[in-house]
Amino acid sequence: MRIGFIGLGVMGGPMAGNLLKAGYALTVYDRNLDRCAPARKAGAAVTSNAREVAAASDVVITMVSDTPDVERVVFGPQGVAEGLAPGSVLVDMSTISPKRTVEFAARLAAAGSDWVDAPVSGGEPLAIAGKLAIMAGGREEAFQRVRPILECLGSAIEYTGPAGNGQKTKMVNQVAGSLSLLAMVESLRVAKAAGLDLEKTLRVVSQGAAGSWMMSNLGPRVIRGDFAPGFRIRLHQKDLRLATEWIQELGLDCPGSALAYDLFTRALEKGLGEDGNQGLWRLWEA
Amino acid sequence: MRIGFIGLGVMGGPMAGNLLKAGYALTVYDRNLDRCAPARKAGAAVTSNAREVAAASDVVITMVSDTPDVERVVFGPQGVAEGLAPGSVLVDMSTISPKRTVEFAARLAAAGSDWVDAPVSGGEPLAIAGKLAIMAGGREEAFQRVRPILECLGSAIEYTGPAGNGQKTKMVNQVAGSLSLLAMVESLRVAKAAGLDLEKTLRVVSQGAAGSWMMSNLGPRVIRGDFAPGFRIRLHQKDLRLATEWIQELGLDCPGSALAYDLFTRALEKGLGEDGNQGLWRLWEA
Repeated sequence: MRIGFIGLGVMGGPMAGNLLKAGYALTVYDRNLDRCAPARKAGAAVTSNAREVAAASDVVITMVSDTPDVERVVFGPQGVAEGLAPGSVLVDMSTISPKRTVEFAARLAAAGSDWVDAPVSGGEPLAIAGKLAIMAGGREEAFQRVRPILECLGSAIEYTGPAGNGQKTKMVNQVAGSLSLLAMVESLRVAKAAGLDLEKTLRVVSQGAAGSWMMSNLGPRVIRGDFAPGFRIRLHQKDLRLATEWIQELGLDCPGSALAYDLFTRALEKGLGEDGNQGLWRLWEA
Repeated sequence: MRIGFIGLGVMGGPMAGNLLKAGYALTVYDRNLDRCAPARKAGAAVTSNAREVAAASDVVITMVSDTPDVERVVFGPQGVAEGLAPGSVLVDMSTISPKRTVEFAARLAAAGSDWVDAPVSGGEPLAIAGKLAIMAGGREEAFQRVRPILECLGSAIEYTGPAGNGQKTKMVNQVAGSLSLLAMVESLRVAKAAGLDLEKTLRVVSQGAAGSWMMSNLGPRVIRGDFAPGFRIRLHQKDLRLATEWIQELGLDCPGSALAYDLFTRALEKGLGEDGNQGLWRLWEA
């Protein structure tokens, strides 16, 4: 099976690398050519647009930033849709609007191809390790066809139902992750203000009912002042914007998500967008 | 070493049971005599007030609800302080005000005895299992003296510094735990409104960066509509009141804790106080 990969950033780069390591023939494209160098070196063919990727592939994976990026790279000029043969599968692993995903899937279905939305959780470390959590939506037959590919990228793969459900599940994940991150940041802020030993505090809190992935994995980074990105504040804020829009469409009152969106937006406005999301800590620094 | 135990409720009952199982001689008191029956059956001496407990013990453990309860049982008429021999240790495992704890410790020190504050995390299931997380403050010598006792009650025991630091660490724990609980409740509310399969959603979200103790342990209870208490909303709201007061004393702006306190207060006002804290879910039910 020939695979195309579009978007070789912090997440897409190592994901494409894992597919090459698994022995797949890969054709790649990124509008920033420099980002294609590691994949080229590992044996991938590099093209100059998304249409050419699609023409050379049975399955095309997109891993870009936001809804308009996916729309442009798939349906824009020289986009995937122009090159995709009927019967192919587009696997969008970006995190984008669930509502627009349903539209995109219908548009591709009309052209005879499948849309599988398969956003991920875990950030750069789990992308490198091939151990992402993957939440997939789409026709079950199409999902089963691409499942062996997803298994090279993630260790927790869940089929969640029709196209759009993967993105919906990812929104749920981001609601939970944002508040879990805030739990870690706010509790350590209180501990610091109280003059407590942060390492001891983190150790005992992690082992009780307040323990979490964020506490165990990003808490130590905050303590040692490491704000390098696994997952950037800029993208986390974007995910919360998508989640907030979608929660409004659902007609729900979600005060936690609203607060998290506000805090991440303030962090972005403060110039912290390129920090890892644990950099939310710095929102309260002078 | 003779141990006294005051307060044999949901937490204190099984904790006293674990000390009896470990072979300690125990003298107990609870203002509700019925609660003393299991301890009596397991070999404990039952007294009719806290002073008598203290007079019969080298170490007295208190496990009651709130700051005024501790103050009354220790310094009130027929209280612990009236019966305690100099050189004894009072181990307060309740969750109460850090500020008042510092005062109480000084008051007991003036009478020649030690105060170790050692609040816990983990709720009833971990109390029964003897696997609580315990955050201890006080003179280190006094802590080391009672450490073997604490080891019968918990598996993660952290010495956090002088008297009051145990309660401060517990406040930090409750800030983190409350937001982590909100993360679980709010994300599952969104998943339900979106018509997603809640079990699949919980499974994949738990395995990525949004995973937490609350998600893994209380999420399944919410899904099956089980709101029985491990840890009651009434007491969780009390802890958040203490945390909020203390955060104000520290001069911090903690919007997440403020939101959590507001939501738990609304849940209490809605009559959900005797539910387990996962019952926060029901705040949004009609």
